[in-house]
Amino acid sequence: MPVTEKKLIQRIRRLAGKNPSLVMGIGDDAAVLRIPAGHEVLVTTDFSLENVHFRREWHCPQLVGWRCLTRGLSDIAAMGGEPRAAFLSLALGRDVPETWVQKFLEGLLALARKHGVALAGGDTAESLSGIQADITVVGSVPKGKAVLRSGARPNQQIYVTGALGGPASALSELMLGQHLGRVGEGHLRPHLRLAVGQWLRRHRLPCAMIDISDGLSTDLEHICQESQVGADLVADAIPRARSGPGKNRVDLRFALHGGDDYELLFTSARKVPATIEGVAVSRIGQTTSRTGMRLIDAHGTARRLDAGGWEHFRQES
Amino acid sequence: MPVTEKKLIQRIRRLAGKNPSLVMGIGDDAAVLRIPAGHEVLVTTDFSLENVHFRREWHCPQLVGWRCLTRGLSDIAAMGGEPRAAFLSLALGRDVPETWVQKFLEGLLALARKHGVALAGGDTAESLSGIQADITVVGSVPKGKAVLRSGARPNQQIYVTGALGGPASALSELMLGQHLGRVGEGHLRPHLRLAVGQWLRRHRLPCAMIDISDGLSTDLEHICQESQVGADLVADAIPRARSGPGKNRVDLRFALHGGDDYELLFTSARKVPATIEGVAVSRIGQTTSRTGMRLIDAHGTARRLDAGGWEHFRQES
Repeated sequence: MPVTEKKLIQRIRRLAGKNPSLVMGIGDDAAVLRIPAGHEVLVTTDFSLENVHFRREWHCPQLVGWRCLTRGLSDIAAMGGEPRAAFLSLALGRDVPETWVQKFLEGLLALARKHGVALAGGDTAESLSGIQADITVVGSVPKGKAVLRSGARPNQQIYVTGALGGPASALSELMLGQHLGRVGEGHLRPHLRLAVGQWLRRHRLPCAMIDISDGLSTDLEHICQESQVGADLVADAIPRARSGPGKNRVDLRFALHGGDDYELLFTSARKVPATIEGVAVSRIGQTTSRTGMRLIDAHGTARRLDAGGWEHFRQES
Repeated sequence: MPVTEKKLIQRIRRLAGKNPSLVMGIGDDAAVLRIPAGHEVLVTTDFSLENVHFRREWHCPQLVGWRCLTRGLSDIAAMGGEPRAAFLSLALGRDVPETWVQKFLEGLLALARKHGVALAGGDTAESLSGIQADITVVGSVPKGKAVLRSGARPNQQIYVTGALGGPASALSELMLGQHLGRVGEGHLRPHLRLAVGQWLRRHRLPCAMIDISDGLSTDLEHICQESQVGADLVADAIPRARSGPGKNRVDLRFALHGGDDYELLFTSARKVPATIEGVAVSRIGQTTSRTGMRLIDAHGTARRLDAGGWEHFRQES
């Protein structure tokens, strides 16, 4: 590691920022956080491993940092929660240049600042090679109000925010070599639906909610399994991202099975606005008492839909 | 990874245990925890990386799991806090046998059960090779009562729990090949001073506290730097572990610079009992207004003491 552990910690500490929730941040055995009275604590952790979740030759370091924190914040969004603090465990091999680390931190901390989240601690280590990051995000939500995956009941409408499949389509182009060079900071930067998640929770609209990190089909299956319901999706209703020079809509398979979208997927027994906090919300199907998932095409034909989400790079390469 | 990610998560979920703090554990986007009214939240994260923090040929898997969680719980102890829940991020290469994972989880969960801590979430991934674990522990402490590293003032007494240098001495024997085979479950199992830390906090005795994970000299330097004081240690007063067949006291250097002890090091302006919660407490020196650390030998001669703690295996091998 060209940057020593001590220097790295000093640098992170200088850049980490403050936040009213933070009583004690980096520099002690543990961080000390203040959570609003009447709130419960939310905790989530997510790996960002080189050659598993990202590739140095494809993803610029700012994007890797931004995505690393997005993974954690998006889990808080999916509970309807408010993020309070993030914790970064970062192991670096000697093959990782100091400039890479600097830009990674810039990307991560830019997103943290945007949402008023302090980087409050973590761990550092020298790894044998490459980059292993693990992000922990701590948030909070008023007592009893966290939106779980298990709250769906049959005959509820299924909704999704934004448009799906953009990141999966772009990544596929990289894998096929149709797109040369690295994905820049401005591209592939995932959406994050914190405001929408909080709005939905405050208005008590969602019965079950999840973020789409593994792909629509996989994450919908998580809701179905935890809630013991099935689901019918209408193929034409699934909002597909536009991509490439022609701004064409991506293939349905990317929208159905691609990962890394970080949009919110939820069920509701009530009518949901078409736009929430400036984000389009689409009704894409409904839950059923029959278990299993089905996809209904334009002719009304239903076929079985299997979870076929995100595979890590390892298996694909 | 011989055990699929899905099977691994199901297994962990089955074994994870419950806890009154836990509203929602494994199986949602984030865990939901209840923290006692009037408490602040403590959060710490610690890596356990193969060939950095442990070696498969030296450490049995139960011990690796036990130590992995000890690292997190010990940080909560050093704040005087009560642990509430643990989160395990675990990346495994295909070279890691399923039985290794099973035994690792057994070790980790045995310690969790012992202290009533639920395993409330985490992440799993397939890594390129080897084992990368990151443990997050969330605890709590009454508002304003967390014991920080920064509270020491000049002319306070310095205390340490237990005896130091045992793990470093045993590891040194392994490195020199003087001890064949792996370190078993019963050996090298680190102490954990949660009850002592809480007792000290309740009795308002410590002004600054830290756990000895990096070695006495390194961790004392952390207190000195955060508190802007110096320290004089009395060599003969430092409690040394006994080790080997003859049960001889370990070399002073292991007690001074060895890591992985997980004993508590603290300063106090008041008299501290010689035994707390069944654990011996030794007075080993005092803080000074002059910065820097000194070691005073049996003849009263003082020499400069530099932080020379734990080096990861990587640099030593």
